[in-house]
Amino acid sequence: MNEISFDIEEYIDRVQSFHGHLSPGVIIGGFMVYVVQVRIPEGRLYNAICETPKCLPDAIQLLTPCTVGNGRLRIINIGRFALSLYDKYQGNGFRVFLDLNKLEHWTEIKAWFFRLKPKAEQNHDCLMTQIIASGERLCGVHPIQVHPRFLERQRKGRIVLCPSCEEAYPVQNGNICQACQEPSPYLIPECLEKAE
Amino acid sequence: MNEISFDIEEYIDRVQSFHGHLSPGVIIGGFMVYVVQVRIPEGRLYNAICETPKCLPDAIQLLTPCTVGNGRLRIINIGRFALSLYDKYQGNGFRVFLDLNKLEHWTEIKAWFFRLKPKAEQNHDCLMTQIIASGERLCGVHPIQVHPRFLERQRKGRIVLCPSCEEAYPVQNGNICQACQEPSPYLIPECLEKAE
Repeated sequence: MNEISFDIEEYIDRVQSFHGHLSPGVIIGGFMVYVVQVRIPEGRLYNAICETPKCLPDAIQLLTPCTVGNGRLRIINIGRFALSLYDKYQGNGFRVFLDLNKLEHWTEIKAWFFRLKPKAEQNHDCLMTQIIASGERLCGVHPIQVHPRFLERQRKGRIVLCPSCEEAYPVQNGNICQACQEPSPYLIPECLEKAE
Repeated sequence: MNEISFDIEEYIDRVQSFHGHLSPGVIIGGFMVYVVQVRIPEGRLYNAICETPKCLPDAIQLLTPCTVGNGRLRIINIGRFALSLYDKYQGNGFRVFLDLNKLEHWTEIKAWFFRLKPKAEQNHDCLMTQIIASGERLCGVHPIQVHPRFLERQRKGRIVLCPSCEEAYPVQNGNICQACQEPSPYLIPECLEKAE
């Protein structure tokens, strides 16, 4: 086991500053990250998979060296409140999830997790107290081996100019950039607006 | 204009700690975020779109209240080195990109951006000096209006148990959870491993 430690008070401060508010999911996520982190042998380089884009990615980014922008955290939105840390080269690691059997005695956590109450009826203080009191005891952990596609080094092709929008893009995306191939996230044609 | 300030020295320290190393993309990203941030009227609640998962999401997460986990940063991988900040309710905002016309005089940045040299031949110190010296002058900015789908509140449906993996998932994903519908990111059948 790794001799890593988890200081919940310090973590709460960091969540407040980074995530913007004390979301129950990010606080539980802190314990979840800790539970797998201690199982990674000391000094091993690891990456992360998060199975939901909600809350958990911020716990991973705050407590591990894996961020979205450095490519070490991959978010695969399959709707489960779970995450994995795995050896960057070998692909073996651990996955953690909320064990629903262990949730029975923690009524406020259960109500929040299954959305049994509208948000206005949730008792935020009681929920936080239960989360901190239960800590890592709610977590289920099992070993995993990630699919080999996560171990492949992404090839970096050439960067070229898109003949349509005149911005740079990776040539492997096609004859024009992907932004010009897909429905745009923006409504205003960008070419008309490049005046500033 | 917003009276926000950008301290590059402080930012470099934060990048080192969060992103793990001084990546050119995250440092340029700091200037890019600043350039759009000053254009957002004071006190306005804004969200972010990032057009690449590489580097830029970390600049956004470090310098704005928008993170992946709090849902205020959406990454749409269309391969362009660009980002937008937009009014959460109205959808109007600004998009920033690297203006390639302005890149001509900054040879080391150009070589890095277009991958004209293998990494071993890049002069990291010279690249960083050029990035800091050029600052926001490399940025092109234009106003945008995001597609209405970014303004819609995501409906939160019920959370139910997946009959296949026995984990919780949003009922709107179908009769079994999405993890059980799609090729798994893991090789070992998870049900066999839930012993711990």
